[in-house]
Amino acid sequence: MTPREKAAMTTVLLVHHPVLNRNGEIVTTAVTNLDIHDISRAARTFGCEGYHLVTPIALQRELILSVISHWKEGFGLAHNPKRSEAFERTAVVSSIAESLDLIRQQHGQEPLVIATSARETGLPVFSAARLLEDPRPLALLFGTGWGLAPEALAAAKGVLAPITGPSDYNHLSVRSAVSIILDRLYGNRAES
Amino acid sequence: MTPREKAAMTTVLLVHHPVLNRNGEIVTTAVTNLDIHDISRAARTFGCEGYHLVTPIALQRELILSVISHWKEGFGLAHNPKRSEAFERTAVVSSIAESLDLIRQQHGQEPLVIATSARETGLPVFSAARLLEDPRPLALLFGTGWGLAPEALAAAKGVLAPITGPSDYNHLSVRSAVSIILDRLYGNRAES
Repeated sequence: MTPREKAAMTTVLLVHHPVLNRNGEIVTTAVTNLDIHDISRAARTFGCEGYHLVTPIALQRELILSVISHWKEGFGLAHNPKRSEAFERTAVVSSIAESLDLIRQQHGQEPLVIATSARETGLPVFSAARLLEDPRPLALLFGTGWGLAPEALAAAKGVLAPITGPSDYNHLSVRSAVSIILDRLYGNRAES
Repeated sequence: MTPREKAAMTTVLLVHHPVLNRNGEIVTTAVTNLDIHDISRAARTFGCEGYHLVTPIALQRELILSVISHWKEGFGLAHNPKRSEAFERTAVVSSIAESLDLIRQQHGQEPLVIATSARETGLPVFSAARLLEDPRPLALLFGTGWGLAPEALAAAKGVLAPITGPSDYNHLSVRSAVSIILDRLYGNRAES
Protein backbone atom coordinates (compact mmCIF):
# COMPACT_ATOMS: atom_id res chain seq x y z
CA MET A 1 0.00 0.00 0.00
CA THR A 2 1.30 3.52 -0.69
CA PRO A 3 1.80 5.95 2.21
CA ARG A 4 -1.06 8.01 0.77
CA GLU A 5 -3.45 5.04 0.77
CA LYS A 6 -2.41 3.99 4.26
CA ALA A 7 -2.74 7.53 5.66
CA ALA A 8 -6.28 7.68 4.25
CA MET A 9 -7.21 4.76 6.54
CA THR A 10 -5.28 5.96 9.60
CA THR A 11 -6.88 7.50 12.68
CA VAL A 12 -4.85 9.29 15.36
CA LEU A 13 -6.21 8.82 18.90
CA LEU A 14 -5.14 11.37 21.49
CA VAL A 15 -5.87 9.59 24.74
CA HIS A 16 -6.68 11.60 27.90
CA HIS A 17 -7.72 8.48 29.82
CA PRO A 18 -6.43 5.99 30.89
CA VAL A 19 -2.99 7.62 31.10
CA LEU A 20 -0.35 7.87 33.79
CA ASN A 21 0.71 10.86 35.85
CA ARG A 22 4.29 11.46 37.03
CA ASN A 23 3.74 9.07 39.94
CA GLY A 24 2.56 6.23 37.73
CA GLU A 25 -1.06 6.61 38.83
CA ILE A 26 -3.91 6.27 36.33
CA VAL A 27 -5.51 9.65 35.69
CA THR A 28 -7.60 11.64 33.22
CA THR A 29 -5.70 14.63 31.83
CA ALA A 30 -7.29 17.92 30.78
CA VAL A 31 -7.67 18.70 27.10
CA THR A 32 -5.24 21.37 25.89
CA ASN A 33 -6.45 23.86 23.29
CA LEU A 34 -3.29 23.51 21.21
CA ASP A 35 -3.66 19.72 21.15
CA ILE A 36 -6.89 20.28 19.27
CA HIS A 37 -5.28 22.70 16.81
CA ASP A 38 -1.78 21.37 16.25
CA ILE A 39 -2.74 17.72 15.89
CA SER A 40 -5.72 18.49 13.62
CA ARG A 41 -3.34 20.39 11.36
CA ALA A 42 -0.73 17.62 11.41
CA ALA A 43 -3.31 14.86 10.78
CA ARG A 44 -4.73 16.87 7.86
CA THR A 45 -1.28 17.66 6.41
CA PHE A 46 -0.26 14.00 6.47
CA GLY A 47 -3.56 12.85 4.93
CA CYS A 48 -5.00 10.94 7.90
CA GLU A 49 -8.59 9.76 7.81
CA GLY A 50 -9.37 10.90 11.33
CA TYR A 51 -8.24 12.47 14.56
CA HIS A 52 -10.10 11.39 17.69
CA LEU A 53 -9.72 13.23 20.99
CA VAL A 54 -10.51 10.64 23.66
CA THR A 55 -11.86 11.80 27.01
CA PRO A 56 -14.50 10.35 29.34
CA ILE A 57 -15.31 13.83 30.73
CA ALA A 58 -18.46 15.16 29.05
CA LEU A 59 -17.64 18.79 29.81
CA GLN A 60 -14.26 18.43 28.11
CA ARG A 61 -15.89 16.88 25.05
CA GLU A 62 -18.29 19.84 24.89
CA LEU A 63 -15.36 22.25 25.19
CA ILE A 64 -13.58 20.59 22.26
CA LEU A 65 -16.74 20.68 20.14
CA SER A 66 -17.22 24.37 20.88
CA VAL A 67 -13.64 25.12 19.80
CA ILE A 68 -14.11 23.12 16.60
CA SER A 69 -17.45 24.73 15.77
CA HIS A 70 -15.97 28.20 16.33
CA TRP A 71 -13.46 27.49 13.57
CA LYS A 72 -15.76 25.50 11.31
CA GLU A 73 -18.83 27.73 11.47
CA GLY A 74 -18.30 30.87 13.49
CA PHE A 75 -16.00 33.84 13.33
CA GLY A 76 -13.04 31.51 12.86
CA LEU A 77 -14.24 30.27 9.48
CA ALA A 78 -14.21 33.77 7.99
CA HIS A 79 -10.95 34.59 9.81
CA ASN A 80 -9.01 31.49 8.78
CA PRO A 81 -10.69 29.02 6.36
CA LYS A 82 -7.58 26.80 6.37
CA ARG A 83 -8.14 26.05 10.05
CA SER A 84 -11.70 24.96 9.30
CA GLU A 85 -10.31 22.51 6.75
CA ALA A 86 -7.97 21.09 9.40
CA PHE A 87 -10.94 20.28 11.65
CA GLU A 88 -12.99 18.37 9.04
CA ARG A 89 -11.70 15.03 10.31
CA THR A 90 -11.46 15.86 14.01
CA ALA A 91 -13.92 14.08 16.30
CA VAL A 92 -14.50 13.64 20.00
CA VAL A 93 -15.11 10.27 21.66
CA SER A 94 -15.50 9.11 25.24
CA SER A 95 -13.20 6.07 25.18
CA ILE A 96 -10.66 4.15 23.14
CA ALA A 97 -13.33 1.45 22.66
CA GLU A 98 -15.76 3.99 21.18
CA SER A 99 -13.11 5.21 18.77
CA LEU A 100 -12.28 1.68 17.65
CA ASP A 101 -16.01 0.99 17.19
CA LEU A 102 -16.30 3.99 14.87
CA ILE A 103 -13.36 2.79 12.80
CA ARG A 104 -14.79 -0.75 12.68
CA GLN A 105 -18.16 0.56 11.48
CA GLN A 106 -16.52 2.82 8.90
CA HIS A 107 -14.42 0.04 7.38
CA GLY A 108 -16.39 -3.13 8.21
CA GLN A 109 -13.10 -4.45 9.49
CA GLU A 110 -11.18 -4.69 12.76
CA PRO A 111 -8.50 -1.97 12.94
CA LEU A 112 -4.87 -2.70 13.70
CA VAL A 113 -4.18 -0.86 16.96
CA ILE A 114 -0.65 0.44 17.40
CA ALA A 115 0.54 2.38 20.43
CA THR A 116 3.34 4.87 20.86
CA SER A 117 5.50 5.11 23.93
CA ALA A 118 8.71 6.77 25.04
CA ARG A 119 9.23 3.82 27.41
CA GLU A 120 9.78 0.10 26.98
CA THR A 121 6.38 -1.62 26.74
CA GLY A 122 7.14 -5.27 26.02
CA LEU A 123 4.98 -5.03 22.89
CA PRO A 124 6.47 -5.92 19.48
CA VAL A 125 7.90 -2.96 17.53
CA PHE A 126 6.25 -2.41 14.15
CA SER A 127 8.28 -0.75 11.39
CA ALA A 128 6.74 1.75 8.95
CA ALA A 129 7.16 -0.85 6.20
CA ARG A 130 5.22 -3.46 8.17
CA LEU A 131 2.38 -0.99 8.79
CA LEU A 132 2.18 -0.18 5.05
CA GLU A 133 1.92 -3.90 4.22
CA ASP A 134 -0.97 -4.46 6.63
CA PRO A 135 -4.38 -4.22 4.89
CA ARG A 136 -6.34 -3.19 8.00
CA PRO A 137 -7.33 0.34 8.99
CA LEU A 138 -4.79 1.72 11.43
CA ALA A 139 -5.50 3.24 14.85
CA LEU A 140 -2.49 5.07 16.30
CA LEU A 141 -2.66 5.64 20.07
CA PHE A 142 -0.86 8.57 21.70
CA GLY A 143 -0.97 9.14 25.45
CA THR A 144 -1.10 12.54 27.12
CA GLY A 145 0.30 13.11 30.63
CA TRP A 146 3.11 10.66 31.30
CA GLY A 147 1.94 8.19 28.67
CA LEU A 148 -0.63 5.47 28.03
CA ALA A 149 -1.64 3.35 31.03
CA PRO A 150 -1.07 -0.43 30.82
CA GLU A 151 -4.83 -0.83 30.29
CA ALA A 152 -4.59 1.32 27.14
CA LEU A 153 -1.46 -0.46 25.92
CA ALA A 154 -3.33 -3.75 26.31
CA ALA A 155 -5.60 -2.70 23.42
CA ALA A 156 -2.57 -2.51 21.09
CA LYS A 157 -0.96 -5.23 18.98
CA GLY A 158 2.35 -3.41 18.87
CA VAL A 159 4.21 -0.14 19.22
CA LEU A 160 6.24 2.15 17.01
CA ALA A 161 9.94 2.61 17.73
CA PRO A 162 10.33 5.39 20.31
CA ILE A 163 11.55 8.74 19.04
CA THR A 164 15.05 9.46 20.27
CA GLY A 165 17.72 11.97 19.40
CA PRO A 166 21.43 12.07 20.18
CA SER A 167 20.79 13.13 23.79
CA ASP A 168 19.71 11.11 26.80
CA TYR A 169 16.82 13.54 27.28
CA ASN A 170 13.58 12.19 25.87
CA HIS A 171 10.63 14.34 26.88
CA LEU A 172 8.82 15.57 23.80
CA SER A 173 5.36 17.07 23.98
CA VAL A 174 2.63 14.82 22.60
CA ARG A 175 2.11 17.43 19.86
CA SER A 176 5.74 16.99 18.79
CA ALA A 177 5.51 13.20 19.01
CA VAL A 178 2.39 12.99 16.80
CA SER A 179 3.96 15.32 14.22
CA ILE A 180 7.18 13.33 14.05
CA ILE A 181 5.46 9.93 13.85
CA LEU A 182 3.15 11.09 11.03
CA ASP A 183 6.15 12.50 9.16
CA ARG A 184 8.05 9.25 9.61
CA LEU A 185 5.09 7.25 8.28
CA TYR A 186 3.63 9.55 5.62
CA GLY A 187 5.88 12.59 5.06
CA ASN A 188 8.14 13.32 2.10
CA ARG A 189 11.11 12.09 4.12
CA ALA A 190 13.05 10.88 1.12
CA GLU A 191 13.52 14.45 -0.14
CA SER A 192 14.77 15.84 3.15
CA MET B 1 30.27 14.96 11.04
CA THR B 2 27.88 12.72 12.98
CA PRO B 3 24.32 13.89 13.63
CA ARG B 4 25.23 14.11 17.33
CA GLU B 5 28.20 16.39 16.65
CA LYS B 6 26.21 18.56 14.26
CA ALA B 7 23.27 18.86 16.65
CA ALA B 8 25.67 20.04 19.36
CA MET B 9 26.52 23.06 17.17
CA THR B 10 22.97 23.77 15.98
CA THR B 11 20.82 26.63 17.24
CA VAL B 12 17.09 26.85 16.54
CA LEU B 13 15.82 30.41 16.04
CA LEU B 14 12.10 30.97 16.51
CA VAL B 15 11.53 34.27 14.76
CA HIS B 16 8.68 36.57 15.85
CA HIS B 17 9.95 39.44 13.69
CA PRO B 18 10.25 40.04 10.76
CA VAL B 19 7.50 37.61 9.74
CA LEU B 20 4.44 37.85 7.52
CA ASN B 21 0.78 37.92 8.47
CA ARG B 22 -1.97 36.36 6.34
CA ASN B 23 -2.02 39.43 4.12
CA GLY B 24 1.70 39.30 3.42
CA GLU B 25 2.43 42.30 5.63
CA ILE B 26 5.51 42.37 7.87
CA VAL B 27 4.51 42.03 11.52
CA THR B 28 5.76 41.02 14.95
CA THR B 29 3.85 38.04 16.35
CA ALA B 30 3.15 37.42 20.01
CA VAL B 31 5.12 34.77 21.86
CA THR B 32 3.07 31.65 22.65
CA ASN B 33 3.66 29.86 25.94
CA LEU B 34 3.74 26.43 24.29
CA ASP B 35 6.33 27.63 21.76
CA ILE B 36 8.65 28.14 24.73
CA HIS B 37 7.90 24.70 26.18
CA ASP B 38 7.48 22.42 23.19
CA ILE B 39 10.44 23.72 21.22
CA SER B 40 12.75 23.75 24.28
CA ARG B 41 11.86 20.09 24.81
CA ALA B 42 12.38 19.20 21.14
CA ALA B 43 15.70 21.09 20.92
CA ARG B 44 16.89 19.33 24.09
CA THR B 45 15.72 15.88 22.92
CA PHE B 46 17.53 16.23 19.60
CA GLY B 47 20.72 17.48 21.26
CA CYS B 48 20.74 21.06 19.92
CA GLU B 49 23.20 23.56 21.32
CA GLY B 50 20.66 26.32 21.67
CA TYR B 51 17.13 27.57 21.19
CA HIS B 52 16.72 31.31 20.70
CA LEU B 53 13.34 33.01 20.86
CA VAL B 54 13.68 36.14 18.74
CA THR B 55 11.47 39.13 19.48
CA PRO B 56 12.16 42.88 19.41
CA ILE B 57 9.48 43.50 22.06
CA ALA B 58 11.12 43.93 25.47
CA LEU B 59 7.97 43.04 27.39
CA GLN B 60 7.69 39.74 25.50
CA ARG B 61 11.33 38.94 26.24
CA GLU B 62 10.65 39.56 29.94
CA LEU B 63 7.60 37.31 29.78
CA ILE B 64 9.64 34.48 28.29
CA LEU B 65 12.36 34.91 30.92
CA SER B 66 9.79 34.78 33.71
CA VAL B 67 8.33 31.54 32.31
CA ILE B 68 11.79 30.01 32.06
CA SER B 69 12.83 31.09 35.54
CA HIS B 70 9.61 29.67 36.99
CA TRP B 71 10.61 26.25 35.67
CA LYS B 72 14.33 26.57 36.32
CA GLU B 73 14.22 28.05 39.81
CA GLY B 74 10.73 28.37 41.19
CA PHE B 75 7.88 26.03 41.97
CA GLY B 76 8.29 24.42 38.55
CA LEU B 77 11.73 23.04 39.36
CA ALA B 78 10.42 21.02 42.29
CA HIS B 79 7.28 20.08 40.35
CA ASN B 80 9.00 18.90 37.17
CA PRO B 81 12.84 18.84 37.08
CA LYS B 82 12.82 17.46 33.52
CA ARG B 83 11.27 20.69 32.30
CA SER B 84 14.04 22.68 33.93
CA GLU B 85 16.57 20.59 32.01
CA ALA B 86 14.76 21.40 28.76
CA PHE B 87 15.23 25.12 29.39
CA GLU B 88 18.98 25.00 30.02
CA ARG B 89 19.74 25.99 26.44
CA THR B 90 16.81 28.32 25.84
CA ALA B 91 17.65 32.01 25.42
CA VAL B 92 15.89 35.20 24.43
CA VAL B 93 17.28 37.66 21.89
CA SER B 94 15.97 40.83 20.29
CA SER B 95 16.87 40.13 16.66
CA ILE B 96 18.19 37.53 14.24
CA ALA B 97 21.42 39.56 14.07
CA GLU B 98 21.85 39.36 17.86
CA SER B 99 21.35 35.59 17.76
CA LEU B 100 23.91 35.17 14.98
CA ASP B 101 26.34 37.37 16.93
CA LEU B 102 26.02 35.08 19.95
CA ILE B 103 26.71 32.01 17.82
CA ARG B 104 29.67 33.76 16.18
CA GLN B 105 31.14 34.66 19.59
CA GLN B 106 30.57 31.15 20.92
CA HIS B 107 32.30 29.44 18.00
CA GLY B 108 34.69 32.11 16.70
CA GLN B 109 33.24 31.31 13.31
CA GLU B 110 30.48 32.56 11.03
CA PRO B 111 27.40 30.29 11.29
CA LEU B 112 25.73 28.75 8.27
CA VAL B 113 22.22 30.22 8.28
CA ILE B 114 19.50 27.98 6.89
CA ALA B 115 15.83 28.94 6.71
CA THR B 116 12.69 26.83 6.65
CA SER B 117 9.62 27.67 4.64
CA ALA B 118 6.41 26.01 3.53
CA ARG B 119 6.57 28.18 0.40
CA GLU B 120 8.93 28.50 -2.56
CA THR B 121 11.74 30.90 -1.62
CA GLY B 122 14.14 30.85 -4.56
CA LEU B 123 16.94 29.84 -2.14
CA PRO B 124 18.93 26.64 -2.78
CA VAL B 125 17.61 23.56 -0.97
CA PHE B 126 20.13 21.98 1.42
CA SER B 127 19.85 18.24 2.15
CA ALA B 128 20.49 16.80 5.61
CA ALA B 129 23.66 15.18 4.22
CA ARG B 130 24.97 18.53 2.98
CA LEU B 131 24.36 20.13 6.37
CA LEU B 132 26.24 17.32 8.13
CA GLU B 133 29.23 17.83 5.82
CA ASP B 134 29.43 21.56 6.53
CA PRO B 135 31.92 22.37 9.32
CA ARG B 136 30.26 25.63 10.43
CA PRO B 137 27.86 26.07 13.35
CA LEU B 138 24.30 25.89 12.07
CA ALA B 139 21.54 28.46 12.68
CA LEU B 140 18.09 27.13 11.72
CA LEU B 141 15.47 29.86 11.18
CA PHE B 142 11.77 29.15 11.74
CA GLY B 143 9.12 31.81 11.18
CA THR B 144 5.99 32.23 13.27
CA GLY B 145 2.81 33.76 11.82
CA TRP B 146 2.65 33.11 8.08
CA GLY B 147 6.37 32.59 7.76
CA LEU B 148 9.68 34.43 7.56
CA ALA B 149 9.62 37.82 5.81
CA PRO B 150 11.89 38.28 2.76
CA GLU B 151 14.21 40.37 4.95
CA ALA B 152 14.68 37.35 7.27
CA LEU B 153 15.13 34.95 4.36
CA ALA B 154 17.84 37.26 3.00
CA ALA B 155 20.01 36.30 6.00
CA ALA B 156 19.93 32.64 4.90
CA LYS B 157 22.24 30.80 2.52
CA GLY B 158 19.63 28.15 1.79
CA VAL B 159 16.48 26.38 2.93
CA LEU B 160 15.48 22.90 3.95
CA ALA B 161 13.02 20.97 1.78
CA PRO B 162 9.47 21.89 2.83
CA ILE B 163 7.58 19.32 4.87
CA THR B 164 4.74 17.83 2.88
CA GLY B 165 2.46 14.83 3.28
CA PRO B 166 0.21 13.03 0.83
CA SER B 167 -2.43 15.80 1.00
CA ASP B 168 -2.53 19.21 -0.65
CA TYR B 169 -3.02 20.74 2.80
CA ASN B 170 0.19 22.12 4.22
CA HIS B 171 -0.42 24.17 7.35
CA LEU B 172 1.56 22.74 10.23
CA SER B 173 2.08 24.68 13.44
CA VAL B 174 5.62 25.98 13.87
CA ARG B 175 5.92 23.63 16.88
CA SER B 176 5.20 20.66 14.59
CA ALA B 177 7.57 21.95 11.91
CA VAL B 178 10.51 22.37 14.31
CA SER B 179 9.93 18.89 15.78
CA ILE B 180 9.81 17.24 12.35
CA ILE B 181 12.86 19.07 11.00
CA LEU B 182 14.97 18.17 14.07
CA ASP B 183 13.85 14.54 13.77
CA ARG B 184 14.76 14.51 10.07
CA LEU B 185 18.20 15.92 10.84
CA TYR B 186 19.08 14.30 14.17
CA GLY B 187 16.45 11.68 15.11
CA ASN B 188 16.78 7.91 15.08
CA ARG B 189 14.92 7.85 11.77
CA ALA B 190 16.66 4.77 10.47
CA GLU B 191 14.99 2.62 13.12
CA SER B 192 11.48 3.85 12.45
